Amino acid sequence: MSKTELFFKSELMQNDIDEAYEAIIEESESGEVGYYLLPEDMQTLTEIRQFCENYDFDAIKNVVVIGIGGSSLGTKAIDYMLAHTENRNDKNLIFMENVDPNEIKHNLKNVNFEESFFIMISKSGGTIETTSHVKYILDRYDISLGDAAFVKHFAIITDPLSPLDQFAKEHTLTTFHLPLNVGGRFSVFTPVGLLPLMILGYDVEKILFGARELKESFFAKNEDTLIKKAYFYASSQENLPINVLFSYSSSFKYFNDWYVQLWGESLGKINRDGKKVGLTPIALVGSVDQHSFLQLIIEGPLNKTVTMIKVEDFNNEMKIPDITIPHLEKTNFINEHSFNELINAQCDATMESIKDQGVDVDMITLNGLDEKSVGEMIFYYELLTSLTGYFLNVNTYNQPGVELGKVILQKKFEK
Amino acid sequence: MSKTELFFKSELMQNDIDEAYEAIIEESESGEVGYYLLPEDMQTLTEIRQFCENYDFDAIKNVVVIGIGGSSLGTKAIDYMLAHTENRNDKNLIFMENVDPNEIKHNLKNVNFEESFFIMISKSGGTIETTSHVKYILDRYDISLGDAAFVKHFAIITDPLSPLDQFAKEHTLTTFHLPLNVGGRFSVFTPVGLLPLMILGYDVEKILFGARELKESFFAKNEDTLIKKAYFYASSQENLPINVLFSYSSSFKYFNDWYVQLWGESLGKINRDGKKVGLTPIALVGSVDQHSFLQLIIEGPLNKTVTMIKVEDFNNEMKIPDITIPHLEKTNFINEHSFNELINAQCDATMESIKDQGVDVDMITLNGLDEKSVGEMIFYYELLTSLTGYFLNVNTYNQPGVELGKVILQKKFEK
Repeated sequence: MSKTELFFKSELMQNDIDEAYEAIIEESESGEVGYYLLPEDMQTLTEIRQFCENYDFDAIKNVVVIGIGGSSLGTKAIDYMLAHTENRNDKNLIFMENVDPNEIKHNLKNVNFEESFFIMISKSGGTIETTSHVKYILDRYDISLGDAAFVKHFAIITDPLSPLDQFAKEHTLTTFHLPLNVGGRFSVFTPVGLLPLMILGYDVEKILFGARELKESFFAKNEDTLIKKAYFYASSQENLPINVLFSYSSSFKYFNDWYVQLWGESLGKINRDGKKVGLTPIALVGSVDQHSFLQLIIEGPLNKTVTMIKVEDFNNEMKIPDITIPHLEKTNFINEHSFNELINAQCDATMESIKDQGVDVDMITLNGLDEKSVGEMIFYYELLTSLTGYFLNVNTYNQPGVELGKVILQKKFEK
Repeated sequence: MSKTELFFKSELMQNDIDEAYEAIIEESESGEVGYYLLPEDMQTLTEIRQFCENYDFDAIKNVVVIGIGGSSLGTKAIDYMLAHTENRNDKNLIFMENVDPNEIKHNLKNVNFEESFFIMISKSGGTIETTSHVKYILDRYDISLGDAAFVKHFAIITDPLSPLDQFAKEHTLTTFHLPLNVGGRFSVFTPVGLLPLMILGYDVEKILFGARELKESFFAKNEDTLIKKAYFYASSQENLPINVLFSYSSSFKYFNDWYVQLWGESLGKINRDGKKVGLTPIALVGSVDQHSFLQLIIEGPLNKTVTMIKVEDFNNEMKIPDITIPHLEKTNFINEHSFNELINAQCDATMESIKDQGVDVDMITLNGLDEKSVGEMIFYYELLTSLTGYFLNVNTYNQPGVELGKVILQKKFEK
């Protein structure tokens, strides 16, 4: 298991901690919030495995995920965290997200339809980006909705009985369902993430196993640290409105984006007392962003918390060779050390320099970047989000604020 | 020229506006801040052009930039904004930035030394990431410092008379200088950006021309909007500590990262009155981040400003075809419109829904994504940063806060 150390004080009485455990357990048992059950959902896993075993994926070079927000961010996060591992096969993973025409052109440049498997993901089927991409792809590759090629090369992931589900049924398309009580940003352990990740070769069961271990520990009330951290963030939201995640590996690049959606969209709400609340996520990659954002953390206003993420063992022995560059002898202190040591020492040094300024910091240490630890990290942040939402007194699972823009958009074309 | 519309009130007397112009003109004339002069520096451009014409770049497939922070972000930003244009040749642009060993392995996987041109960038030569990468590359490709292959395949960009400059001179390496009065994050119009961008085929002179047009307009005191915007941000820094840039094209992905460094590192400072000040940059890509961060802007605390960036003409006629997907007829309102129209209508709709919540918004509209408009955008943000720094009463051009971490790092290895 990974570990978390808090370097700030979060004063919370034991009975408040117990109440928070109970609230989450109750939420889980109520059936209203479905993501808690996903780490144990072996039936879905079996269905996906059967599909993968029966499909000729050897002939597939490109896995094209057509989906946006919660339909793409989790898969991208996990693939990028695990891309260096040996399970990953060499299929291209392509995301159709934005409606930027230059990006669409670039994405599909080398995509041959016969060698590609398209996964269309939308809870309702009404996502304008996703349907526009599907229409474009049909037209570009000259495929009609009734064609055998369409049935063979497309899978649909959607809510049961949604309009998209009805379409898929009528056209006998391969379909997987999202549970109705799981929102997009909590959906990576549904077919939304599991299907593409299994096609890419990952041991998806191990990812779920990592999540399950943390879940069991939390539901056995052994994760007080998580609750203290959530309470600290929620109770400091006026003075410390910004939560920085500083992840020391390039592998976290898209985990960071996943975190930003999860945190921002779950907690930025009008709460049950009618107050606008929320916490602003910022996600950085170390050591790169020491050369970008760190100055602001150190000398700027004290309005941020910082969470460092460190990977203990990169499973990579690469070293800085014992070479002296004349006039640059000052850099020799790192010679013959591994890059793994260097990046972790940078993480520690940065944390110390941040703490030195009185910034509230905590450090998550992962043993390594493998399926299990990645599953655990994802579930850790989902639980932290639920707990922070509980303390902020918001509905963590909806996103009513984005509807108005969709209405305005449609009106612009109804002339 | 692009245009900016402010949808918030920035009360500033004409004589305060004039004072701000004068302060920037004085800063430019004092010689202490060098970036103002770069758009007119035709001599450096000529040197770079001569080098490029005399070097056999036809034999080069990979341009490897070894540098971090200001040494990489600007080049990456411009290349990504212009990647779709016809001037861009098909050379790979690779950045060696992080010391993550898995990333280094991935970056160099298909890099053959003979087909590659390496550009090492460091103001002093003491950047630990950059020297470690260079040492690793020398070892990996079995190159000694005295080898002709080293001299042929490496160029150095550094401050005049720096330790790295001395090394380069002694080894007769191709060297370009950064002006001493130009800091890393303001250096994209020095050889730091110009050399790799010219090798990639871009019309670098046009980029500078775009910057020069804006500069001349500002120095002729025709850019009051810029000053009003800077004043608004600086004077609202306590209530509105977060400045969101919401860019409606995937092409802005790395421009966003460049903005984050420029804004965060320039303005996050202990100011001349001894106060910790600063503004927190957030950068988003639309429409993608409507499905991520928008909810927080709409319903969360009113502690953010938002700048929308829209590209009027993507120079891409791609359309959503007239296809009806049964049960998803509701999405047909967009059929037969171009993706260009769709993404811009999303930008407008999002802006309206944000304004509706009382958020302070402005909109920058670019004519297109070409060399000239990109040069203008870069210089626009550099000027905005200088002006905001002026109103915050900080030294916009240093970064003293990041030194402690470097000292701590070195101590960790001196045992």
